[in-house]
Amino acid sequence: MDQKGYRRGSFQSATSDEDMLEIAGASMDFSMADDDPPLDREMGGFSSYNGGGMNGTSTMMDFLEEPLPGVGTYEDFNTIDWVREKSRDRDRHREITNRSKESTWALLHSVSDAFSGWLLMLLIGLLAGSLAGLIDISAHWMTDLKEGVCLAGFWFNHEHCCWKSNTTFTDRDKCPEWKSWSQLILGHGEGAFAYILNYLMYVIWALMFSLLAVLLVKGFAPYACGSGIPEIKTILSGFIIRGYLGKWTLVIKTITLVLAVSSGLSLGKEGPLVHVACCCGNILCHLFTKYRKNEAKRREVLSAAAAAGVSVAFGAPIGGVLFSLEEVSYYFPLKTLWRSFFAALVAAFTLRSINPFGNSRLVLFYVEFHMPWHLLELVPFILLGIFGGLWGAFFIRSNIAWCRRRKTTRLGKYPVLEVLVVTAITAILAFPNEYTRMSTSELISELFNDCGILDSSKLCEYVNDFNSTKGDDLPDRAAGPGVYTAMWQLALALIMKVFITIFTFGMKVPSGLFIPSMAVGAIAGRLLGVAVEQLAFYHHDWPIFSGWCSQGADCITPGLYAMVGAAACLGGVTRMTVSLVVIMFELTGGLEYIVPLMAAAMTSKWVADAIGREGIYDAHIRLNGYPFLEAKEEFSHKTRAMDVMRPRKNDPPLTVITQDSMSVEDVETIVGSTTYSGYPVVVSRTSQRLVGFVLRRDLIISIENARKKQDGIVSTSVICFTDYCPPLPPSSPSVLKLRSILDLSPFTVTDETPMEIVVDIFRKLGLRQCLVTHNGKLLGIITKKDVLKHIAQMANQDPDSILFN
Amino acid sequence: MDQKGYRRGSFQSATSDEDMLEIAGASMDFSMADDDPPLDREMGGFSSYNGGGMNGTSTMMDFLEEPLPGVGTYEDFNTIDWVREKSRDRDRHREITNRSKESTWALLHSVSDAFSGWLLMLLIGLLAGSLAGLIDISAHWMTDLKEGVCLAGFWFNHEHCCWKSNTTFTDRDKCPEWKSWSQLILGHGEGAFAYILNYLMYVIWALMFSLLAVLLVKGFAPYACGSGIPEIKTILSGFIIRGYLGKWTLVIKTITLVLAVSSGLSLGKEGPLVHVACCCGNILCHLFTKYRKNEAKRREVLSAAAAAGVSVAFGAPIGGVLFSLEEVSYYFPLKTLWRSFFAALVAAFTLRSINPFGNSRLVLFYVEFHMPWHLLELVPFILLGIFGGLWGAFFIRSNIAWCRRRKTTRLGKYPVLEVLVVTAITAILAFPNEYTRMSTSELISELFNDCGILDSSKLCEYVNDFNSTKGDDLPDRAAGPGVYTAMWQLALALIMKVFITIFTFGMKVPSGLFIPSMAVGAIAGRLLGVAVEQLAFYHHDWPIFSGWCSQGADCITPGLYAMVGAAACLGGVTRMTVSLVVIMFELTGGLEYIVPLMAAAMTSKWVADAIGREGIYDAHIRLNGYPFLEAKEEFSHKTRAMDVMRPRKNDPPLTVITQDSMSVEDVETIVGSTTYSGYPVVVSRTSQRLVGFVLRRDLIISIENARKKQDGIVSTSVICFTDYCPPLPPSSPSVLKLRSILDLSPFTVTDETPMEIVVDIFRKLGLRQCLVTHNGKLLGIITKKDVLKHIAQMANQDPDSILFN
Repeated sequence: MDQKGYRRGSFQSATSDEDMLEIAGASMDFSMADDDPPLDREMGGFSSYNGGGMNGTSTMMDFLEEPLPGVGTYEDFNTIDWVREKSRDRDRHREITNRSKESTWALLHSVSDAFSGWLLMLLIGLLAGSLAGLIDISAHWMTDLKEGVCLAGFWFNHEHCCWKSNTTFTDRDKCPEWKSWSQLILGHGEGAFAYILNYLMYVIWALMFSLLAVLLVKGFAPYACGSGIPEIKTILSGFIIRGYLGKWTLVIKTITLVLAVSSGLSLGKEGPLVHVACCCGNILCHLFTKYRKNEAKRREVLSAAAAAGVSVAFGAPIGGVLFSLEEVSYYFPLKTLWRSFFAALVAAFTLRSINPFGNSRLVLFYVEFHMPWHLLELVPFILLGIFGGLWGAFFIRSNIAWCRRRKTTRLGKYPVLEVLVVTAITAILAFPNEYTRMSTSELISELFNDCGILDSSKLCEYVNDFNSTKGDDLPDRAAGPGVYTAMWQLALALIMKVFITIFTFGMKVPSGLFIPSMAVGAIAGRLLGVAVEQLAFYHHDWPIFSGWCSQGADCITPGLYAMVGAAACLGGVTRMTVSLVVIMFELTGGLEYIVPLMAAAMTSKWVADAIGREGIYDAHIRLNGYPFLEAKEEFSHKTRAMDVMRPRKNDPPLTVITQDSMSVEDVETIVGSTTYSGYPVVVSRTSQRLVGFVLRRDLIISIENARKKQDGIVSTSVICFTDYCPPLPPSSPSVLKLRSILDLSPFTVTDETPMEIVVDIFRKLGLRQCLVTHNGKLLGIITKKDVLKHIAQMANQDPDSILFN
Repeated sequence: MDQKGYRRGSFQSATSDEDMLEIAGASMDFSMADDDPPLDREMGGFSSYNGGGMNGTSTMMDFLEEPLPGVGTYEDFNTIDWVREKSRDRDRHREITNRSKESTWALLHSVSDAFSGWLLMLLIGLLAGSLAGLIDISAHWMTDLKEGVCLAGFWFNHEHCCWKSNTTFTDRDKCPEWKSWSQLILGHGEGAFAYILNYLMYVIWALMFSLLAVLLVKGFAPYACGSGIPEIKTILSGFIIRGYLGKWTLVIKTITLVLAVSSGLSLGKEGPLVHVACCCGNILCHLFTKYRKNEAKRREVLSAAAAAGVSVAFGAPIGGVLFSLEEVSYYFPLKTLWRSFFAALVAAFTLRSINPFGNSRLVLFYVEFHMPWHLLELVPFILLGIFGGLWGAFFIRSNIAWCRRRKTTRLGKYPVLEVLVVTAITAILAFPNEYTRMSTSELISELFNDCGILDSSKLCEYVNDFNSTKGDDLPDRAAGPGVYTAMWQLALALIMKVFITIFTFGMKVPSGLFIPSMAVGAIAGRLLGVAVEQLAFYHHDWPIFSGWCSQGADCITPGLYAMVGAAACLGGVTRMTVSLVVIMFELTGGLEYIVPLMAAAMTSKWVADAIGREGIYDAHIRLNGYPFLEAKEEFSHKTRAMDVMRPRKNDPPLTVITQDSMSVEDVETIVGSTTYSGYPVVVSRTSQRLVGFVLRRDLIISIENARKKQDGIVSTSVICFTDYCPPLPPSSPSVLKLRSILDLSPFTVTDETPMEIVVDIFRKLGLRQCLVTHNGKLLGIITKKDVLKHIAQMANQDPDSILFN
């Protein structure tokens, strides 16, 4: 070894190197969870080539330590090289397995390494479940705080406060310990003045909560805003956004999520919970070398964490795993499926043991229906599906238009003001209407609810005819005045939710989209359900009802309509399919209702897809210009690699390095005059036959190192990438051998390769770049960014919308 | 166009060619479901190169018709080229989309094309559900026929027969219409002689059923034997086994499955149901051009059909989809997930509306538990997991050893005799023991059952202390004599099942492994459950029981232990994980019991994996030498492409064709003297720079065609693969231009590429072969078979065990 510095040759045997170990101690941690607040994005010098490639080598001195600072890590806002990361992990694994035969200690290490994944999942489940419980409890308390306070202890929420009192079941909401603000301040709760006071307090609390939320986000963790799912999708596909899953983001997002939900804004906690769970996963990764040092392995953990997040958000572990598989994850080996399932289960059971709602259910809107549905009801269900699809498409268009306006106009400069204005409007509009004043989860829960005989809510105010009641089974009844009032209020609530959600999603506070979408759908569904129910009650002699809905029978369940509507709207916005149906199935617990849910979800997806192909998350990814290579869409254009590769026809030729004829100075000039992060190495300038690929970073480090530590390396020294360097005249300076940093297995395609295949290769293998050859000669290079730009161009979009590498 | 014949150039624009259309009409259908009985396997001339490659072109004259007979199809026992198939489908799709703008008819065609997948899924679900119902009903009837006959109509089974009579609930099994054989023949059912007569009839019926089954399989559809899952896995990974999913296989498998199950052999119908569903899928594919003509698209359908099969086998649609995803499928895009789910649901609802068991459940052993479990119970659950793992490993080893013996010794020549002997032994051993005499599904159902107050079975014969009973909630009770008898009988049944199953699985009758595995586990679990229950009853003062299992409490549910045991054993044999837990979850319907199931499944998998890595299906795939590239196992050896490629060091050089210097005669000599199915084309013999890849079949067809139809093509004509052919002396014969059949984008890797990456590429892209280069020069070739052989070699297995291409 005459070359000092780290070696990354192809399958060289690892020998110890003392010079190396000195440096290894100083290794820096450039990992994703690095808590440095993200610096201003390095927008200027986007390099065209990305380093790495199909290499899988990186033989290290010590498999637990990085050989040189920064080696094997990535710059912020860059794409990782999946092939290299996976190869590195395989090397690590091989090393540990080989060592395990040597000593008991090494064997133990090998066993603990194998089980560390499971331990990590357990920890993620416990942490995500606990945080979800904490968020649920705090949000519940703070939501109630807007209306009043508990005298028995200000830390009790309304329900909890009234448990303590000895009031009867029906008066539960009117216990003496709970005081509304007017009661507390004025001493009574009646009259216009008390109403206005309550109104005012409601708005003030809402503004305070949202102000605090936006200030915290702005001041401490800008990444804590939004739902986080678009960014997590991008990160999981192999992008680096440093600090996005760090501990500050976790802390701030948890706090501000509670504040944002409590402020009454039209947003949910489900999407942000996925972000919170991913933060937990990323932070806990730091406990295990295996996951801390490998970006690919870490992404496996994050996929599982996302599953745990959905699991606690909906109490649906299977649905959570499928959500992660279908919607979020990019690289999802089957081993991960099993682990994700474990994490999701642990999280669900942790949350259940915290029991935030006191009903031993994981979510407020768990429901059990008892009545079967009739085949003819598929018609209204499909109508709900159409509504959901239309709403989804409308929402995505309007929201994206509004977000684009925020990005491009002066609006974006006043995030705090924006949040305050939207909160004020929401609160002012929400208070007068009972169905918007309550929290959205409660609203959904009430809408899903199948009216029992004891239900006292307005929605269940039917004209009871106790003569025809047999046992628990209530027949369809005529709607009472309460139901009609509720219908009007719900219709108003629907209109308000539809519009306010467009402006809310994308503000600088944590905001999930699941709950508002479901609320819109549930309101529409309940309205339709009650309408059908009354139609069936008054017109049970119509041919369409005859045979299955006779008088006195309970044939329509409006709550089921609400649930179907919720599924349809959620499907329209997110374009989820299987996971949506499974989540809803886990919320109801009956196989019976899968068919209506599926019919609605299917219709909704078709309708929405007919209007615009993208779901809300993909739309936001595109809006932000993240380099996300969609795995679901087929690339269907007839272009070839030669149409996409660079250099283009009139560009200067490709910058290459020759294998044994360039001097140190030549190479330094090339590195200095270009910004590419890697260079192909060819046999000679004339033959242009490809030898390998070398990373800019590796080149710089190696040359610097050699100049400092190796004798006789001067500017005129020849750099040689071959095994045997050509003999030089005796007077010339010594040769710098750099074969060890050369990636000898760069990925290549021919210039005639159809782009659909190139896209497939990038997607399935997770490449950063690919070299293009013709008859064995190097022609050009295609990077992931080039591919994304080409896809955007083919879809008639602005190719420059792709911002990052 | 001076070249006649079909063109498969890279992205040439399609122009009409009259000569072409003549031939197109004669297109043959070489599709998988071709019902030709499989001919003797073409074992002699396994070619080393496979044709195709990363080409994605096949510009066709008419996108609905094949240009030449046999083009684009595969030989039997060959591997398909996924990249080419997918490209062909994209071309087809593009064509339809482009045309859809031209006319209303084409638009309709485009819409119907888009929805044909859904229609196909609907049909598969309906057909698979109906067949499953038919099988259930027939098997139930024929199983009962072994014991007696219904006088009210011989076509009634025991239960159905007794429904008609007016006996009370407890005497339901002893109704006057149902006559055991002794009652029918002797006029009474008492005494030793009657017992012997019943015994004899039981054995005779069993022998008759199994004889009929094996004769039908042997005579009409040899592929109908076994479970079919190993072969389906192989087919889905891209292998062609013609007739395996054909209509004869479907008919015979359906009939013989009923016979085999009824004969009382230790086998189940679950695996074969997957095969039946896949046959349905494959046959229904013939209705739609899109799926009939494309091997990749057809495999998407088959994945969904497999999900439908499991869905009806266990009444678990979600579990079925996950089973297909986890265990069976190879290429599973997310679009397929959604469709599979649809097919699985339709199948489940079809089966439910047939209602084969009269309990509106899809399976006999559906169960609902009501009692929670205690954390300490995880200890016995984990013990069951260990048992399951040990049993799984033991079963796989013994079964594979026995199957290998059958393959290699004279035993394999007498399949009929073997089936008869095993049936006779099974029947003779089974009759005296009540728990082996009943069908295995019934046994499992009884073992899962939580003893209610009305249960009259021996297993529920507890000493009732009605004083301590409150409502439905039975406390733990002392076991009565019936329970002790049952324990002995179950222990004997366990031993019998364990051994007889080893000899049964792999015989020439349809045989599933799920039910026997579950039965073994359920027996073991029930035994342990009763033991723990009695321990807790008699020693509730022990510290381990104190605090959660006081006297008079119902703390142990033996049925849950049975279910956990069943999951553990099934997991040990098949190594399923998520799908196993989800299937079991769907059988119980409570999230509560997922944790015990998961603990057992996890332990079982770990224990079994520690003994042997392979599940039973993978072991059978290896036993049969199918070319299946496992997607789950990581390749972890440090070899490089140069170690695997051919030619090896001392081999003759690679057979290549030059791009513009070989005559027709030269090429014909090469084709005649080698058996490779494709040849690399290089610039010249001296430079060896790679230009493309040409398929043997294409070469032969094109040359033959040109000799017949093109003027001036003689043996000395030069074949030219370039765009511009070099000028020749005027006296020489005209040039044969073959650029159109050249695949200009063959897949290449460098010789230094680690094999782990090569394996990954083969797996993820579904390649058939890959060319190996060094500095742009062609060195060798790696085929899928080479990769599989190399993997076998690295795992210290016989590389020649890989039989097919």
